[in-house]
Amino acid sequence: MSTFNLYLIRHGLAGQHGDYEDDRQRPLTDEGKRKTRQVAKRMHELEIQFDLILTSPLVRARQTAEILKEAGLGKPLEEAAYLAPGGDVQTWLDWLEGWKNADKSLALVGHEPTLSTWAELLIWGKTGDKIVLKKAGAIGLTVPLSGKAIANCQLFWLTPPKFVLS
Amino acid sequence: MSTFNLYLIRHGLAGQHGDYEDDRQRPLTDEGKRKTRQVAKRMHELEIQFDLILTSPLVRARQTAEILKEAGLGKPLEEAAYLAPGGDVQTWLDWLEGWKNADKSLALVGHEPTLSTWAELLIWGKTGDKIVLKKAGAIGLTVPLSGKAIANCQLFWLTPPKFVLS
Repeated sequence: MSTFNLYLIRHGLAGQHGDYEDDRQRPLTDEGKRKTRQVAKRMHELEIQFDLILTSPLVRARQTAEILKEAGLGKPLEEAAYLAPGGDVQTWLDWLEGWKNADKSLALVGHEPTLSTWAELLIWGKTGDKIVLKKAGAIGLTVPLSGKAIANCQLFWLTPPKFVLS
Repeated sequence: MSTFNLYLIRHGLAGQHGDYEDDRQRPLTDEGKRKTRQVAKRMHELEIQFDLILTSPLVRARQTAEILKEAGLGKPLEEAAYLAPGGDVQTWLDWLEGWKNADKSLALVGHEPTLSTWAELLIWGKTGDKIVLKKAGAIGLTVPLSGKAIANCQLFWLTPPKFVLS
C-alpha cells in the first residue's frame, strides 16, 4: 500500500501563559529557540525532509516552523488556521485530498493536545490521551494514499526532544 | 498517578531465517551487533537505565540483551520464556505484580510482532498492527503502578535505530 510520511511537531518552549494579553502572540523563549534549533539540526542530519510545512498561525508555532525551514528541513511554509488549538482534523483531511502524493512528506507544526489527539485519531480512530508529545517533540506517521486516513495510519516515530539531542 | 518506565526493545539484525536448523539459535550478524552496540551506547548517553533486563531466551534476543548490559544500561539480566515469539502478555503481567515499583525501570528484549502487539494492548487494549518497531528499535511506555496495565499505559517514545544513531 502506498503511503506518505506525516510529521506532527509541537512548538518549542514558549513564554508563560498569562504573561501576554493575546495568547496567540506568546513567543518562544530563548531556551525554546535554542532547543528547537538543536532538534531541527538533528532532524536535518537524520535526512528528514518536508515537501511542505504547514503551521498554526500562533507566534510560538510559526517561530518553530521558521526554525525548521531555516535548518533546511523544507519549504514552502504555509499557515493553516485549523492548526490553531482545538482545530478540526476533518478540515485538514479535506485539504489533504488535494495535496497527498506518494514520496511526499508533510510537516504539521502546532499545539497540544491537538496534535496527539489527531495522531490518535489517525492511528486508532479514537482518542484517549495515550501519546505524550513534549514541546519541540515529534510524531512520525505513515498515511495511506488511498482510502480514509482515520484509523488507517501507522506510527513509526515518537520522540521527546531530549532523545534526539546530543 | 505513579508510574514506572517500560522499554520494549527488539533484537538487532540477525542471520537469515532458514539458514539455521534451529531458529532459536539464529545469532545477530556482525552488522546487527555493530548497530545494536551503537544504539545501546546512545541510550546510555541519554541516561536511560534499566533496573532489570528481561530477555527472550532466543540467541538473537539474548545477544541483544547482553549488548545492552555491556553498555552499562542495566543489570541484572534474566531470561523469560514468555518473551519468545508468540508469548502471552498475561504471563508477563502476572510476573509484573510481584516486581513493579515506583522509580524502577524495566526493559523487555524480544521479537516482532510480539512486542508491538504487547505495546498496543498496554496502550489501547487492542491490537491492530499500528506500531512499526524496527530491529534494534525501542518503545517507551509509562505503566501505572496500581490498577490494570492493559489499556492504561502511555507511549512516550518509539524509535527506529536510525533516528538515535549519529
